[in-house]
Amino acid sequence: MPRRIAICAPATPITRDHAEAVTALAAMEFPALVLAFHDQCFRAEGHFAGADAVRLSAFLDCANDPASDAVWFAKGGYGSNRLLPGALDGLSGAARAKTYLGYSDGGFLLGALYARGIGQAVHAPMPTDIRRAGGAEAVRRTLAWLAGDTGGIEPHCGAEPTAAFNLTTLAMLLGTPHMPDLTGHVLMVEEVCEHLYAIDRLFFHAAALLPRLAGLRLGLVSEVPANDRPFGADAEEIAAYWCARAGIPYLGRAAIGHSATNRIVPFGLARSPGGA
Amino acid sequence: MPRRIAICAPATPITRDHAEAVTALAAMEFPALVLAFHDQCFRAEGHFAGADAVRLSAFLDCANDPASDAVWFAKGGYGSNRLLPGALDGLSGAARAKTYLGYSDGGFLLGALYARGIGQAVHAPMPTDIRRAGGAEAVRRTLAWLAGDTGGIEPHCGAEPTAAFNLTTLAMLLGTPHMPDLTGHVLMVEEVCEHLYAIDRLFFHAAALLPRLAGLRLGLVSEVPANDRPFGADAEEIAAYWCARAGIPYLGRAAIGHSATNRIVPFGLARSPGGA
Repeated sequence: MPRRIAICAPATPITRDHAEAVTALAAMEFPALVLAFHDQCFRAEGHFAGADAVRLSAFLDCANDPASDAVWFAKGGYGSNRLLPGALDGLSGAARAKTYLGYSDGGFLLGALYARGIGQAVHAPMPTDIRRAGGAEAVRRTLAWLAGDTGGIEPHCGAEPTAAFNLTTLAMLLGTPHMPDLTGHVLMVEEVCEHLYAIDRLFFHAAALLPRLAGLRLGLVSEVPANDRPFGADAEEIAAYWCARAGIPYLGRAAIGHSATNRIVPFGLARSPGGA
Repeated sequence: MPRRIAICAPATPITRDHAEAVTALAAMEFPALVLAFHDQCFRAEGHFAGADAVRLSAFLDCANDPASDAVWFAKGGYGSNRLLPGALDGLSGAARAKTYLGYSDGGFLLGALYARGIGQAVHAPMPTDIRRAGGAEAVRRTLAWLAGDTGGIEPHCGAEPTAAFNLTTLAMLLGTPHMPDLTGHVLMVEEVCEHLYAIDRLFFHAAALLPRLAGLRLGLVSEVPANDRPFGADAEEIAAYWCARAGIPYLGRAAIGHSATNRIVPFGLARSPGGA
């Protein structure tokens, strides 16, 4: 039986050529997987891949389809949060047995699903990553994991439960009803396109609202815009500073982020797909 | 007896020529006011107007000085939050009788002071505003208010208690121990230099964490960076959308923001300085 992967875009759209490239890669290398791109992935309305109702409907189509084993978010950007709480309230029993994969803005849904204990949330490269230099390797990592190969898992996933978030996404989710309880977790965070002062400010917020973590790891902090003056500390010093103030053990770097090297982080305890 | 205004820079520095211009304006037009710029205003270390300890010490010098009637923040930028909780814990009795004025990043301290019931927090133009086109009028508004003229107060301050924040500052303060309880308040928010999608995301967060407000007003949303595509809603539509989702009455615009038109918002019920 092939594993069927339903793909929707809860935030922003992808192009058909990227979808075709990912489909071709999967067909060539992972014959046990069937990719089903929802047409909504290619819709556009303002900033989003269709209006909120369109994106919500596509997500529920994918999540509630008993014929699919996993729901893969096509791209981040911004907008998944606007589907809450409908994206949870509209789920049927079939949604509970599925794996949900994505990262960045997709963390709003991954976090909310994890908070409700629905399915398996997984931080993982997305179809849109095919556009990056080395992007085929990133996409291959997710496909391989869906096909049962755990080699792409972030190497620090281990004895403690783990979660991975974009820092901005995490900061906006914290304190809302959709934030999962990460007590005892190793939390991995990454960031892209934010000034260091904004990263410091996000850590101020996160450090105040996070519960007692097992520790924090910092992923890639990329495409930091130039500011009119140097901040005076680098991203890792900022992370370690706020961890120290909050009494969170800072554990070092994590291999996640907005790049082709982004590794897989199953929320909770790492395990193979379907191994729940 | 002249009113003495102690000025420090809890975030980023100003230049001596701006301080001199503000001092000259005050000497010419408001002889009842004495401005005392702390030397720390001109310090620079990385992003900040001196290291955290230097900025904290200057703030406490100003707040704890029995000879001063008000503490005026010279400039925002980023960094006031890093002085918490020391900026509260280090306050003496003399600090309780004072007025604290500023906006933008200064909202971290204004909010924290208001949360503790220390002094009178006031959203108001700052010395750095002198550099803007029409900036003398902005600075004059704060000086006039300090001299007893209430004409510069935001015209919607009225029967309900009011608070004013930069939206990003508010979002980062929400959920922390330094966030004041704004139940029953009219909340005014403004933003600068943020994409509309980021403003939407900040409202998602704020709408989830704010208590039962009397209502929300939107100030100026300025210098919105161009994005690769239109968002599909303007700033006021975004504010009204999230207010509707959260059950917060959206009351219309407010005359606050990062411009020379920024008006004065005393936190709580509007009253003259020293009228507490």
